[in-house]
Amino acid sequence: MPRYKLTIAYEGTDFYGWQKQHPPTQEEPMRTAQGVLEETIRHVFREPVRLVGASRTDSGVHARGQVAAFTAEKELDLARLTAALNTHLPDDLQVVKASIVHDDFNPISNAIAKGYRYRLAHGRKLENLPPLFDRRITARTPHLLDVAPMQEAAQCIIGEHDFASFTRRNHGRESTIRTVHDCTVTATTSRLLRIDVSGNGFLYNMVRIIAGTLMEVGRGHISPTDLPRIFEAKDRGATGPTLPAEGLCLMWIQYP
Amino acid sequence: MPRYKLTIAYEGTDFYGWQKQHPPTQEEPMRTAQGVLEETIRHVFREPVRLVGASRTDSGVHARGQVAAFTAEKELDLARLTAALNTHLPDDLQVVKASIVHDDFNPISNAIAKGYRYRLAHGRKLENLPPLFDRRITARTPHLLDVAPMQEAAQCIIGEHDFASFTRRNHGRESTIRTVHDCTVTATTSRLLRIDVSGNGFLYNMVRIIAGTLMEVGRGHISPTDLPRIFEAKDRGATGPTLPAEGLCLMWIQYP
Repeated sequence: MPRYKLTIAYEGTDFYGWQKQHPPTQEEPMRTAQGVLEETIRHVFREPVRLVGASRTDSGVHARGQVAAFTAEKELDLARLTAALNTHLPDDLQVVKASIVHDDFNPISNAIAKGYRYRLAHGRKLENLPPLFDRRITARTPHLLDVAPMQEAAQCIIGEHDFASFTRRNHGRESTIRTVHDCTVTATTSRLLRIDVSGNGFLYNMVRIIAGTLMEVGRGHISPTDLPRIFEAKDRGATGPTLPAEGLCLMWIQYP
Repeated sequence: MPRYKLTIAYEGTDFYGWQKQHPPTQEEPMRTAQGVLEETIRHVFREPVRLVGASRTDSGVHARGQVAAFTAEKELDLARLTAALNTHLPDDLQVVKASIVHDDFNPISNAIAKGYRYRLAHGRKLENLPPLFDRRITARTPHLLDVAPMQEAAQCIIGEHDFASFTRRNHGRESTIRTVHDCTVTATTSRLLRIDVSGNGFLYNMVRIIAGTLMEVGRGHISPTDLPRIFEAKDRGATGPTLPAEGLCLMWIQYP
């Protein structure tokens, strides 16, 4: 039976995240990217399938390069499959690409790197009109940020570190050591910036806490030279706030 | 009493166009950009105002540079006024700029030029995923378009012409002669193009019919050399379809 790998994009605004959720009572199931896509695949294949996603994006988080896989009995032409899925999918979720992969392809454990982008509009509304047409994919802060120290601090995040300070307490992970391959802050305009982070793996809320910590650096509340101390603290209290989901986008996932 | 000029941006998706509309029965008024903005101005000024807009954009049409004016008794600081309005406005409508103008400033009759952009994704869904995050401001056609003849035809639209073929029948205008200053077709990607049109005035649906006619050129149904004959016909039947509102954006309005 062929195993299919899908690359997926969605605007997270109207999804309760990636993961299917079963509300305790007999209410309507919550609208999730996995739920919507799995149902569409079943409709196209006319057989039950189980879809596994690489990354459990949170409610409101967007994706340009989410990856998911499923095994089906039918072998369908990939271009026709992509077209059929996109014809039936709602317009806030798209299958960007489909391919056939090895039987034991596991989108979670086979991933070797992921890239995220965080978009943040900063400064008071008076001089900072949030981007109108991109407002659903941009977070906002009323604080005007100084980008240069943020760029300096971003450099300190690159490398292998214990990211315990950059995830919630009681995260339930055995190890909080991760390697960040790249972390850059780019000023798109004087009031809009993006933070690009890539690495071999990410803890829960890690990118949003990195973004929140860099925001505190941009406000002058944290100095770039504080970063080593923040890593050493291994305490969520040492880092900045978890920035909102709407600014975050899963850009790509790399496989061998 | 000071007269205020506002430059306004909105995503037209959830507006029934610019113009306030009074449904015949006692239903809720329809949500229009003028209606929403006028109500917000009244709330901020705490006095009745009458807002006049430069361009009656249709239902679903977007704006980056709509202009409107009103006269009020109070004189408010312009930066504070902009901030106050934006604080109370919904997030799909923004006041980009406010200024004080002459008592007799008329946003309609004083306008000397306007610029529009039409965004069109083309080609079948199989090889043409519509732009996910810009889907609300982009129209789509399943036909794959050849951009070079469109660019050639666009050149023929520039200049002073009788645009009777480019507006609906029974338009009710005395003269259908207008001057188009610029008309360019740009391929943003291989499946996405934009048509920028500016001129001294536009007839009802004129930009959307120009876009539809250029689309027919891109499909090979109309040749760029047909354009003189199309102008001469002075007949709506000679031009292409009126493309959907969602692709159109009023970019700017120029005043002396």
